[in-house]
Amino acid sequence: MIKSGYSLFERASRTFRNHPTLSKLLLVSTLSVITWINLVASSDGRPYNGDKHIHSSSDEGKKKKVVVLGTGCAGTSFLRNLSNPSYDVHVVSPRNYFVFSPLLPILTCGTVEARSIIDPIRTILLKKSYDVHFEEANCYKIDPEKKKVYCKSSKNTNVRGEKDEFALDYDYLVIAMGARVNTFNTPGVVEYAHFLKEVEDAQRIRKSVLDSFERASLPSLSEEERKRILHFVVVGGGPAGVEFAAEFHDFFHEDLLKLYPHIKDYVKITLIEAADHILNTYDNKITAFAEEKFQRDGIHVKTGSMVVQVTDTEISAKERKTGEVSNTPYGMVVWATGNGTRPEIMAFMKQIGQANRHALATDEWLRVGRCENVYALGDCATVNQRQVMEDIAFIFNKADKNKSGTLNLKDFQEIVDDILERYPQVKLHLKRRKMRNFSALLKNSQESAQNQAIEIENFKSALSEVDSQIINLPATAQVAGQQGEYLADCFNRMEECEKYPEGPLRFRGSGRHQFHPFRYNNLGKFAPLGGKQVAIQSPGDWVWIGRSTRWIWYSVYTSKLASWRARTSVISDWVKRFIFGRDSSRIRD
Amino acid sequence: MIKSGYSLFERASRTFRNHPTLSKLLLVSTLSVITWINLVASSDGRPYNGDKHIHSSSDEGKKKKVVVLGTGCAGTSFLRNLSNPSYDVHVVSPRNYFVFSPLLPILTCGTVEARSIIDPIRTILLKKSYDVHFEEANCYKIDPEKKKVYCKSSKNTNVRGEKDEFALDYDYLVIAMGARVNTFNTPGVVEYAHFLKEVEDAQRIRKSVLDSFERASLPSLSEEERKRILHFVVVGGGPAGVEFAAEFHDFFHEDLLKLYPHIKDYVKITLIEAADHILNTYDNKITAFAEEKFQRDGIHVKTGSMVVQVTDTEISAKERKTGEVSNTPYGMVVWATGNGTRPEIMAFMKQIGQANRHALATDEWLRVGRCENVYALGDCATVNQRQVMEDIAFIFNKADKNKSGTLNLKDFQEIVDDILERYPQVKLHLKRRKMRNFSALLKNSQESAQNQAIEIENFKSALSEVDSQIINLPATAQVAGQQGEYLADCFNRMEECEKYPEGPLRFRGSGRHQFHPFRYNNLGKFAPLGGKQVAIQSPGDWVWIGRSTRWIWYSVYTSKLASWRARTSVISDWVKRFIFGRDSSRIRD
Repeated sequence: MIKSGYSLFERASRTFRNHPTLSKLLLVSTLSVITWINLVASSDGRPYNGDKHIHSSSDEGKKKKVVVLGTGCAGTSFLRNLSNPSYDVHVVSPRNYFVFSPLLPILTCGTVEARSIIDPIRTILLKKSYDVHFEEANCYKIDPEKKKVYCKSSKNTNVRGEKDEFALDYDYLVIAMGARVNTFNTPGVVEYAHFLKEVEDAQRIRKSVLDSFERASLPSLSEEERKRILHFVVVGGGPAGVEFAAEFHDFFHEDLLKLYPHIKDYVKITLIEAADHILNTYDNKITAFAEEKFQRDGIHVKTGSMVVQVTDTEISAKERKTGEVSNTPYGMVVWATGNGTRPEIMAFMKQIGQANRHALATDEWLRVGRCENVYALGDCATVNQRQVMEDIAFIFNKADKNKSGTLNLKDFQEIVDDILERYPQVKLHLKRRKMRNFSALLKNSQESAQNQAIEIENFKSALSEVDSQIINLPATAQVAGQQGEYLADCFNRMEECEKYPEGPLRFRGSGRHQFHPFRYNNLGKFAPLGGKQVAIQSPGDWVWIGRSTRWIWYSVYTSKLASWRARTSVISDWVKRFIFGRDSSRIRD
Repeated sequence: MIKSGYSLFERASRTFRNHPTLSKLLLVSTLSVITWINLVASSDGRPYNGDKHIHSSSDEGKKKKVVVLGTGCAGTSFLRNLSNPSYDVHVVSPRNYFVFSPLLPILTCGTVEARSIIDPIRTILLKKSYDVHFEEANCYKIDPEKKKVYCKSSKNTNVRGEKDEFALDYDYLVIAMGARVNTFNTPGVVEYAHFLKEVEDAQRIRKSVLDSFERASLPSLSEEERKRILHFVVVGGGPAGVEFAAEFHDFFHEDLLKLYPHIKDYVKITLIEAADHILNTYDNKITAFAEEKFQRDGIHVKTGSMVVQVTDTEISAKERKTGEVSNTPYGMVVWATGNGTRPEIMAFMKQIGQANRHALATDEWLRVGRCENVYALGDCATVNQRQVMEDIAFIFNKADKNKSGTLNLKDFQEIVDDILERYPQVKLHLKRRKMRNFSALLKNSQESAQNQAIEIENFKSALSEVDSQIINLPATAQVAGQQGEYLADCFNRMEECEKYPEGPLRFRGSGRHQFHPFRYNNLGKFAPLGGKQVAIQSPGDWVWIGRSTRWIWYSVYTSKLASWRARTSVISDWVKRFIFGRDSSRIRD
């Protein structure tokens, strides 16, 4: 189905280029409509409702006050899914819009436009039934004792040209402030490299790429300078770096080549990665395919090489194996090497005794330890999965109802579901060992003593290896979105679940946890490799690479956008790009 | 026809808002196609041809080298219409794109997007048959003696971080560098006011408007500060200022009001104009209508008031009548008061003895006096219409073939067309005096001596008032575009017209002028007044104001864009705005 749809599109494309007539426009309209219909069928989009007002102002005094910090994937997902009208929600963020960050790499080359992948947060909030206030400001301090956050406007506001400061108290605090780029303190990176974190970063890259081509076109430049200016370096072989390199390669070959034919031979793209392979969190097949494709495309992939310094004209990298440092002249460098901690989060972590970590640790309910009613999600946080071995004695005691000091398998039947829910690593361990159920694990540890009572030592040894199966969640938009959705769901049913707790047994206490813990549902991941090819790694590590995959990627990403406006815009950007190519005007955006 | 089309659209709009279903999308697609079809029928657009390369490189040595400075309306119109392959064209401009500047005022509010109204100059040049090179640089000096221009890259380019400099020699020079904003040296304007000249200016205004609304939304601001931040001042009641004020008013009422309901009562728009009325180059009916409409809309129009100073928080204006100066706190000021001279043009004018002027003076063939093969057009230039009285003796002599010192009407029959072409003020004078033809003018001056010979003194007195009819051309995109087209046509037929001159008689010399002089063909003008109403003043000063006029304005402007890409983008922006409203995200662009 997709295959034939693709070739139809491909044929249409050829027709377009050869016969640029009215039929072109008609065909495009038709295709847009078809894509729209697909989206309606597949997405969770809700139509725009412009008639509702933000402030409903009914008995605001009694409402619980929720302060949300950040409007990224996590924060926005929380706000979009929160539907309980009994909250008074205050959102604080330095940007008054939500960015669909997975499309940032293609924004750098103008395949989509900035405004197509963002949505004003106030428009998103307009649809909500709860009371809501938005403040465009930075939260610079959190005081969990006083239950207060301290904020500063992101711009000078008052007549004396000072930043306005204010404090908000909260009943519940949701921290979703995201991360910043990790420069590994490499000298020169902040000064000279481009990042891929914010819309503005991507816009700057776009302008800078076109700047480079214009600068290199000037007469009276030496060969050497022209070569330097047109050397584009990407640092970081993760999905963002690889996607940018691939997209830029396409931009150059599909659009810039014919506009700048006189300098085409000077253009060079280098991708530097410290590990031995690019895309090393992906399946080996994808890595191998990507490396091979990049080699074919003429993108220089330099693995096992660590950037140690960036100056205004040179980038220095150290070979990991030999220790040799080489300096290469460059024109533009894009730094895409994963997440670092934001200073405000770092300060908060120091306050609450998490100074040595890279992200705010939460439990499986996204609650920040030692703080009352403080939640953290998205890139600024990391879920600390509880280890079985920490609780082993409590689990044993819980099962041992008659306090005999020994258990039989029957005792476990009652709490096995709770164990599996509370400690998902047990399930992973069973799967890895190809065991059918928990009983098999216990039986296995005392083969000789089948059906006999189990003592605590046997129990410990049976579960001793289980905790090695704990997996840290990746810092992706997918995780952030699911966390936001999960937390909103908890908030929506807060009262109900207080009365009727739905979570697993509290092994250290009595009763049950109020909610089910957060579980990440891996829906697979994409790695766009350029030239219409997107590698897809599905949940079961099933890999698909091919030409048709781009359409799946398009459909999935479009359906994930926050609004119909964004979806329409992205589709129309893609259609425009398809017909007219990417825009090469060097404006400030 | 238009009326019914309009109400259909209006009804459709209401349906959309009430029933946001799939049919909405289908209808929009259909409407887009219809608009496209209209455009195909009405515009001069050529389809994109991506296959041709810039450099054809055949006998480049022999080709005449044309240097074009600037890629605004005038320069781009020249480049687009030049079709003679015997030129080697070098284009120098600090921006590598063309902006359709009449849409800048609506760009400020996001009714169109920046990239929709611009076109990369290299893409435009790709379609041309002549050899062409583009350099993104500023021309800082013109040497008409050596026939050289001196340029500097607009960015640092070389390894030492310096701007690259280069010189270009030319056979023909086309100066189309535009103008800058005229601040009348008012203190504080450059520092604190926004302009409406470049795409970047409009983008900054857009960001600044949204900044103001976000800043004013912060808690803990005083009433007074909130009021100040939301006081928007527009200086200049010309078409740009009026259009911005109207567009901003619509943006506020149609989109921002529902997103910022808590601060709506603080918003104030003031339009300051030094003359007694706004839109004073338009018909009185339009002025009156606009003033009345603005009053109804709550836009404060302050005429007869001159801005004398702008500080960071206050704007000072002087009442022209009373001399009283008042200071008003403001949050944002947009300065839209006509054109000033660019420093490079000023320097060149000093060189060639035009130091006292505001724009480069050219003759009716757009040639700059005292310079060989130098042409100037667009906002940086002004056409100096030759006065009849300067040449009166030569005209008389030319007609007086037998050198008798007297003429009869028959003598004039032979040169009357040349006089009318060379001195268009004669025709305007006849029209004003309601005379049928030139003979009537002469007869009129010596009624008693009908059919008798005319002496030079009679001739002089007959034409003495003619020169008062000379009209300076307005500094509009329409004039610039027509000048570019005219000059390109001259260049296209340069050799042909050298052999067979087509222009009027040379009264001071022998033979004929090589080309017809440039004549501005006034196609009318628009003044968008907000709320779907656009005032149209057609060539015969016929005025049309009404709700349907917006569709004419849309159609005309869309058809004038430089490419199909731009047209499609502007239409899709309009459709998107119509369905989803304008975007209120505060990103950098």
